[in-house]
Amino acid sequence: MDPRTSLDHVAIAVEDLNAAIPLYTALLGHAPSGRERVESEGVDVAFFDAGPARLELLMPTGPDTPVGRFLSRRGPGLHHITLRVPDLSTALARCRAAGLETVGAAPRRGAGGRAVAFLDPHTTGGLLIELVESGTG
Amino acid sequence: MDPRTSLDHVAIAVEDLNAAIPLYTALLGHAPSGRERVESEGVDVAFFDAGPARLELLMPTGPDTPVGRFLSRRGPGLHHITLRVPDLSTALARCRAAGLETVGAAPRRGAGGRAVAFLDPHTTGGLLIELVESGTG
Repeated sequence: MDPRTSLDHVAIAVEDLNAAIPLYTALLGHAPSGRERVESEGVDVAFFDAGPARLELLMPTGPDTPVGRFLSRRGPGLHHITLRVPDLSTALARCRAAGLETVGAAPRRGAGGRAVAFLDPHTTGGLLIELVESGTG
Repeated sequence: MDPRTSLDHVAIAVEDLNAAIPLYTALLGHAPSGRERVESEGVDVAFFDAGPARLELLMPTGPDTPVGRFLSRRGPGLHHITLRVPDLSTALARCRAAGLETVGAAPRRGAGGRAVAFLDPHTTGGLLIELVESGTG
C-alpha cells in the first residue's frame, strides 16, 4: 500500500483557450494560476488550482500534435489524468505486472524535468493516465 | 475568489468493474476504499482514494442508464469530474452568468443527500462537470 499516490491534475482539451478561460474562471471562482506554452508537447496550457489538485486546459499549437489529433478525433473534453507517485520505477513495475502497458518511451522527461510515463488507454479501460514522479518519495 | 472550490473526484466509465478493480489497485497501490450500488443513477461504483481526491469507477447496471448509454456511444473512459463548492447556489449563479448551463433539475439531491448539479457539456467545452455542495461553506 502506498498512501502517497495522489491525483495531480485533470487535463481538458479545448479548441480555444481564450474562450475557455473565462468559463473556468467562473466555474472555479478564481483566475488561472499560470499559463505557458509547452513546445515539446505542442500545447498552450492554462492551470487552475482546484484544492490540492489542478485543472489544466490544453489547446494544441497546431492540428498535427497529439492534442490536435485528439480534438479532430474525439472533440473537446477530458484528455488525461495525472497521478503523482513517489517512485516512478516502482509504480511502473507494479502496473506492468498487472497488465498496464506504457506508450512511447517510459520513463521520459516531462514538464519541469520530472520523470513521467503514460499508460496505454487500451490497457487501462479507455483512459489515458500519466504518472509523474513527485520527487519526494 | 473562492479558494475552497476543489476537485472531489474523477469518474471513469468501465464495462466490467471486477476486471477494472485489480488494474486500478495496481495503479494506485491500494485496494478500493468502498464499493456500492447507486440505484438512482443506475451504477455500481468502486471508490479509490488518490490523495485528497478520489477516482470512481462506474459500471452501469444496464444498457438503458446514463452510463450505459455513454459506454455505447463513446466507449469506456473518463465520464465526468466533480468539483466541491461551499455553496451551490452561489456557484450556479456565477456559472450561469458566464454562460454555463445545467442539465436536468438543478440543484437536486445526489449521493449522501448532498445538493448537486450537472453542467451541460455543450456549454463547458465538452466536459460533464458535477458540482456538489460540501456543506461546510
